[in-house]
Amino acid sequence: MKATEIHLASRPTGEPVSDNFRTVVTELPPLEDGQILVRNTVMSVDPYMRGRMNDVKSYVPPFAIDAPLDGGAVGEVVESRSDAFAVGDAVSHGKGWRDLAILPAKSARKVDLSKAKASAYLGALGMTGLTAYAGLTSVAQFKEGDTVFVSGAAGAVGSLVGQIAKALGASRVIGSAGSPAKVKRLLELGFDAAFDYHDGPVRKQLAEAAPDGIDVYFDNVGGEHLEAAIGSANKYARFALCGAISQYNATEPTPGPRNLALAIGRELTLKGFIVGSYNHLAAEFDEKMAQWLADGVVEWDETVVDGLENAPKAFIGLLRGENTGKMIVSI
Amino acid sequence: MKATEIHLASRPTGEPVSDNFRTVVTELPPLEDGQILVRNTVMSVDPYMRGRMNDVKSYVPPFAIDAPLDGGAVGEVVESRSDAFAVGDAVSHGKGWRDLAILPAKSARKVDLSKAKASAYLGALGMTGLTAYAGLTSVAQFKEGDTVFVSGAAGAVGSLVGQIAKALGASRVIGSAGSPAKVKRLLELGFDAAFDYHDGPVRKQLAEAAPDGIDVYFDNVGGEHLEAAIGSANKYARFALCGAISQYNATEPTPGPRNLALAIGRELTLKGFIVGSYNHLAAEFDEKMAQWLADGVVEWDETVVDGLENAPKAFIGLLRGENTGKMIVSI
Repeated sequence: MKATEIHLASRPTGEPVSDNFRTVVTELPPLEDGQILVRNTVMSVDPYMRGRMNDVKSYVPPFAIDAPLDGGAVGEVVESRSDAFAVGDAVSHGKGWRDLAILPAKSARKVDLSKAKASAYLGALGMTGLTAYAGLTSVAQFKEGDTVFVSGAAGAVGSLVGQIAKALGASRVIGSAGSPAKVKRLLELGFDAAFDYHDGPVRKQLAEAAPDGIDVYFDNVGGEHLEAAIGSANKYARFALCGAISQYNATEPTPGPRNLALAIGRELTLKGFIVGSYNHLAAEFDEKMAQWLADGVVEWDETVVDGLENAPKAFIGLLRGENTGKMIVSI
Repeated sequence: MKATEIHLASRPTGEPVSDNFRTVVTELPPLEDGQILVRNTVMSVDPYMRGRMNDVKSYVPPFAIDAPLDGGAVGEVVESRSDAFAVGDAVSHGKGWRDLAILPAKSARKVDLSKAKASAYLGALGMTGLTAYAGLTSVAQFKEGDTVFVSGAAGAVGSLVGQIAKALGASRVIGSAGSPAKVKRLLELGFDAAFDYHDGPVRKQLAEAAPDGIDVYFDNVGGEHLEAAIGSANKYARFALCGAISQYNATEPTPGPRNLALAIGRELTLKGFIVGSYNHLAAEFDEKMAQWLADGVVEWDETVVDGLENAPKAFIGLLRGENTGKMIVSI
């Protein structure tokens, strides 16, 4: 059986280009005991993948050159040598960037496509949703009445953070995004204020949107946004550091917040996190999110790019902010 | 009765100079009910006072121009209109920078000069000691076996942080300081490693002193030290942000750590604090520190400058790092 895979051909310098990727057709070996073969229907491209394209020690190992990339995917089991899965089961797993994937049954999770479509399990009901929920409630210790600022707010994680914060009783939720259309969408989603960071200094726009300061900052962007959030932070504010997309393509070290010393007197907490450390919240999250989606309290945007061969283009576009909500590749 | 006071004559730009201060002789009013008159014997100059000399909103209000400065002091009650204190009592209070101070009895605390000398109540047994203890144990969540890095380690707070960490079972304690004599002193105090930050990039020196990384960073300095500590941080490391003395005299915003995004994948926690929020730990701290001092587990350095009129010089010298341990002015 032949699989089509996207390989990393070379490590990007700065912004990735299509030459950094290569489409490869491989002959798959026969399944071993305990393995399943999955035909992927959707896969996810995510900002964190940019870091894995560099050859540096990080919390996940770097992608190898001339090997398939990986990441979240949902598909259908087409062959099984495991009692845990039958042919026809829908599963979520970590072997994206290919149409056919062989994987150990234990690394797949059954999903119910009668309850939500496949891509939802990569987004609101998947790691993306848990990232938003855990970051807000556990890392940033959100409490009712807080004013919350989220950057990259029209992105997959950001739009959920804002909506979850409103659902949990935030007094005010502010989002920043990169286009007028995204700002409009954030207001539709229930954000109390939103601004386009191209329209002026983030510091100034945030200060206007949050005249009484912020209690929680959920950072997807880093850089100027982080500095602005420190400047607007109230005493005891908590920052969940989730991403720094403004820096992912940087070829030089990027300046840190020049006002970080304000964290002393304001007694701020800045806490970095990765979702893998918060799996203990998955059950409570699954239950709440299913209810919020059913009640229409949380809405869920995605930008879909068709065709596995266009996955590199989708990924490059993601880093440019061409998506609203989750960036999905349908295979 | 005439008091001699040091007033703030003008706000420093960059490094303070003696012209920013003025010695003023004032006629004191008679005591009101509930007040005491204290003849100060020692006072403290501390880095945080530099921030209060700027006219910016901070966690304590700025010092007023043409008014006496204030800060920690210990003295003897010479007149009392309060039942809480008798003439001859030794007290610690917040009206330093003057030889005679009128204050409400409720803002003074009795101290026992048979147990420790007056200056100790400004240092190891006072706010300085509590800062070190609370920052290490509560803010940075120190636990046995941790590797601890402290900057400004020969300063009043820093030298206690390192010794307390050793007393509580740190596997390795590393300090940075600003002279060979200070480095030597740190090694005498039981630090496992110490370096002079003038001897090369902090990043490099720290990486050599902590080949297995650090779990806790107690920051008194900010700037290059903070960036180096992020670079050497182990997964889940905790940073107590206590001071940023490298930046206090800055006239331009100083660059933040360029590697702050590492906090995401390493899941670092950076937490600013001021000692005033940790008074609930004072009782447990007093008991432990008294024992550590009695057992010789913790030693206590101070640099004493004679004469109230030399307090500005002592303060300027403090910011230049001319002290080892607590900078005290004897009055």
